[in-house]
Amino acid sequence: MTYYMSASLKLPFDAAVAATEAALKTEGFGVLTRIDVSQTMKTKIDKDMPPYLILGACNPGLAYEALSLENKVGTMLPCNVVVRQDGEAVEVAAIDPVASMQAIPNPALKEAAAMVREKLARVIEALSRAAD
Amino acid sequence: MTYYMSASLKLPFDAAVAATEAALKTEGFGVLTRIDVSQTMKTKIDKDMPPYLILGACNPGLAYEALSLENKVGTMLPCNVVVRQDGEAVEVAAIDPVASMQAIPNPALKEAAAMVREKLARVIEALSRAAD
Repeated sequence: MTYYMSASLKLPFDAAVAATEAALKTEGFGVLTRIDVSQTMKTKIDKDMPPYLILGACNPGLAYEALSLENKVGTMLPCNVVVRQDGEAVEVAAIDPVASMQAIPNPALKEAAAMVREKLARVIEALSRAAD
Repeated sequence: MTYYMSASLKLPFDAAVAATEAALKTEGFGVLTRIDVSQTMKTKIDKDMPPYLILGACNPGLAYEALSLENKVGTMLPCNVVVRQDGEAVEVAAIDPVASMQAIPNPALKEAAAMVREKLARVIEALSRAAD
């Protein structure tokens, strides 16, 4: 079992970010947080790394359901989607919430996580198709 | 194995948030993101819930090391710390990164995650002590 689902895009970085956000929106995910990791590393510890962004994606209805089932599931929300420069391509990798939440012993939550995984898988599939 | 470490504080909500941020700072964690979950749920889907905040905590040096070991670990960063109203108390719950990252088959990363867990455990211990 891997812990992420990914697609490789041959787009400029900013276009890949825009395509990812659009694909997320189609599946009902808004982007609540946006961490520019490479910028943060440069500013805080003067380390250089290729462009790397973490988008915090949230489908409010499903997040509300998850929180109702497990009040501390917020320690694993939102669902992160990494967009990172990978040589000449841009890799987009979404967390597999079923994998990350396997440490939570709550069967109803596992069902909700599987629904979220399905939606994130469709996001990655749509990006892969567009990349062909 | 639980997936979080927590403390129960008898403080007003905003004071609990401030105490959490101060304790994180002592262990070298900055707060990169702050999601007001209850406000988001009210705005997006008109649901009411008690105050619930997700702080995205990051120790830049340890995060850089983790990213060097596993380039898609950003799908599980930053380390979330939930601050939530729990009746008359406020519960602070930090993710256990060893638990959440158990799906990642990378022994060196597990060591780095254990170091982060130790630091987050000290944050929670400090909050618990202050609550006594």
